[in-house]
Amino acid sequence: MPFTSSVRGLFQRPTTQNWQGLIHAYNRWLPVSDRTPVISLCEGATPLVPAPALSARLGRGIEVHLKVDGLNPTGSFKDRGMTMAVSKAKEAGATAVICASTGNTSAAAAAYARRGGMRAFVLIPDGYVAQGKLAQALLYGAEVLAVRGNFDRALTIVREVADKYPVTLVNSLNPYRLQGQKTAAFEVVDVLGDAPDWLCIPMGNAGNISAYWMGFQEYKKAGRCRTLPRMMGFQAAGSAPLVHGTTVEQPDTIATAIRIGNPANREKALKVREESGGGFAAVSDASILDAYRFLGREEGVFCEPASAASVAGLLQRSEEVPSGARVVCVLTGNGLKDPSTAIDHSEATFHGDLDPNTETVAKVLGF
Amino acid sequence: MPFTSSVRGLFQRPTTQNWQGLIHAYNRWLPVSDRTPVISLCEGATPLVPAPALSARLGRGIEVHLKVDGLNPTGSFKDRGMTMAVSKAKEAGATAVICASTGNTSAAAAAYARRGGMRAFVLIPDGYVAQGKLAQALLYGAEVLAVRGNFDRALTIVREVADKYPVTLVNSLNPYRLQGQKTAAFEVVDVLGDAPDWLCIPMGNAGNISAYWMGFQEYKKAGRCRTLPRMMGFQAAGSAPLVHGTTVEQPDTIATAIRIGNPANREKALKVREESGGGFAAVSDASILDAYRFLGREEGVFCEPASAASVAGLLQRSEEVPSGARVVCVLTGNGLKDPSTAIDHSEATFHGDLDPNTETVAKVLGF
Repeated sequence: MPFTSSVRGLFQRPTTQNWQGLIHAYNRWLPVSDRTPVISLCEGATPLVPAPALSARLGRGIEVHLKVDGLNPTGSFKDRGMTMAVSKAKEAGATAVICASTGNTSAAAAAYARRGGMRAFVLIPDGYVAQGKLAQALLYGAEVLAVRGNFDRALTIVREVADKYPVTLVNSLNPYRLQGQKTAAFEVVDVLGDAPDWLCIPMGNAGNISAYWMGFQEYKKAGRCRTLPRMMGFQAAGSAPLVHGTTVEQPDTIATAIRIGNPANREKALKVREESGGGFAAVSDASILDAYRFLGREEGVFCEPASAASVAGLLQRSEEVPSGARVVCVLTGNGLKDPSTAIDHSEATFHGDLDPNTETVAKVLGF
Repeated sequence: MPFTSSVRGLFQRPTTQNWQGLIHAYNRWLPVSDRTPVISLCEGATPLVPAPALSARLGRGIEVHLKVDGLNPTGSFKDRGMTMAVSKAKEAGATAVICASTGNTSAAAAAYARRGGMRAFVLIPDGYVAQGKLAQALLYGAEVLAVRGNFDRALTIVREVADKYPVTLVNSLNPYRLQGQKTAAFEVVDVLGDAPDWLCIPMGNAGNISAYWMGFQEYKKAGRCRTLPRMMGFQAAGSAPLVHGTTVEQPDTIATAIRIGNPANREKALKVREESGGGFAAVSDASILDAYRFLGREEGVFCEPASAASVAGLLQRSEEVPSGARVVCVLTGNGLKDPSTAIDHSEATFHGDLDPNTETVAKVLGF
């Protein structure tokens, strides 16, 4: 048996002696009941890390924090939605889940489904996905099916399979995903004591910006925060359908996690922008890589390239940030998900073939 | 102060509300003062996750928990020691740190040093280290020096450089490292309410087993736990100097993070075994991989191969575990550190080249 309440007393993060994952922490804000079997890996409660170097770069008393959601159990914010989607699937009696995915979603789906004693099916387009991208899903025991055709075809098939057979769809169409993801906004408010002035976030399918907004609104309604943030969504220039109001047939960017040409949550995202007085903008791959390196080198934080779009966007729009404002940049995924980008783009100093003695080394170090 | 009851309320709050890293949480147990500049990435407070599948496999009411220390900021337990070592270096006025390392230590050293505004020098043996292993250190802005010769030669040089010049050595010889690492034992006790009966841990340099034991002993002395665990240390069969009481000239194992033939903390570790009534044992690479896959497939936890040695060891010695005992297995590093092992050894189900239609997929799924 997975995580029924019988083990709850022992399932904790040490800090408060009470953190047992986000469903347990925020159950009264979520569509769960005492009958919901909670499938958890102790997700959520990720660090909100101050960014002193970034704050100094912006100046004018602006205070930037990083929501490091890549420290969730499978390395991305997807775990927040997946603990909800898989727990609700289990509650409904499902014995299997299915998704079409080439990245973070498949890792989260596999980990939670297997933890809940369910089978996990992952559909991918044959010949299209590097095996490395699937390392996690494979290790978590997913059953991977590669079908001929493109990603859209794979998505159509998983929707039809989920309609006809006793297997639950956990792609972003699953309504419980955003419910789980909204808890990140709760955590931000719980730490800061109020909502930030700006919330900067990368947009791919645009589910996460919608989930954060839902969270902030619910907290405001309940009196847990006094203000609401301006929601600032950023897309890669080569994959910016929401910025340009179009569909992008061949999206192209180094930020693979947001390389999506036709976002599923288009209407929701446009509503968030309007309601929050926010803004969308496109950032170049070069500026994404600059932000990615800056975070590593100056803040000691290693995120996925897609995550750095939030910081690249903040830097691009920095003149609009009010003096003294509090800004949160959402870093959605762990940099370890994509080591090759780190190697190819680090610009680090490397001295090779040195004589093995102290004098030589000291000289290179500048002593 | 850690773990007060001040945040208990209607529902639980994120750890981050009160968790500002392990030095802040445990400062009165650590050699720090108000003058110590704390360099932190919000490390520590890692999940202690119940392992229901592993517990069921052992039976007899044995309850196993996993200390998932790979969810620290740079992906390994090394962050615990590095926040201490780098903060104390900063306090002493250092402007640079240095280490010889090919793996987790270099990542942690680079991240914390750069976060603290210091230079980070990493020495490696030229031609010996795959660049992939250095992805993190490079991205965090370390200055990497490759010297001809082997690892021991590199270590000798960094010691001499640190002796002669104003740069602080942060290899495991740095005494503050174990001080930081002992906090993992505090966290375990703070969650369980007492020490576990068994503590299973991988051993390479054997610093971590010594640090845990120091933590448990200090807590016991202060009345924070009533009991002390049996300390069970496990090494890979091809790299087991502490098990066999020898030095291994050519250590060989898939568990690279514990591939050490001449452990720096040999005497400390032997003392821990004696004082705790514990035991050391060697586990084969095959059993390490079995445990690694089991954790992924059955518990939804993805760790480094070296980390799985703790679980392989527990399974090997399971008949000695008392009925109803509480066991903690320490998982020292994140599986994402080593994606190629996941791909090469996952044994997952893969169906390729399928017709892109629902019927074909449903049939493969068994519907």
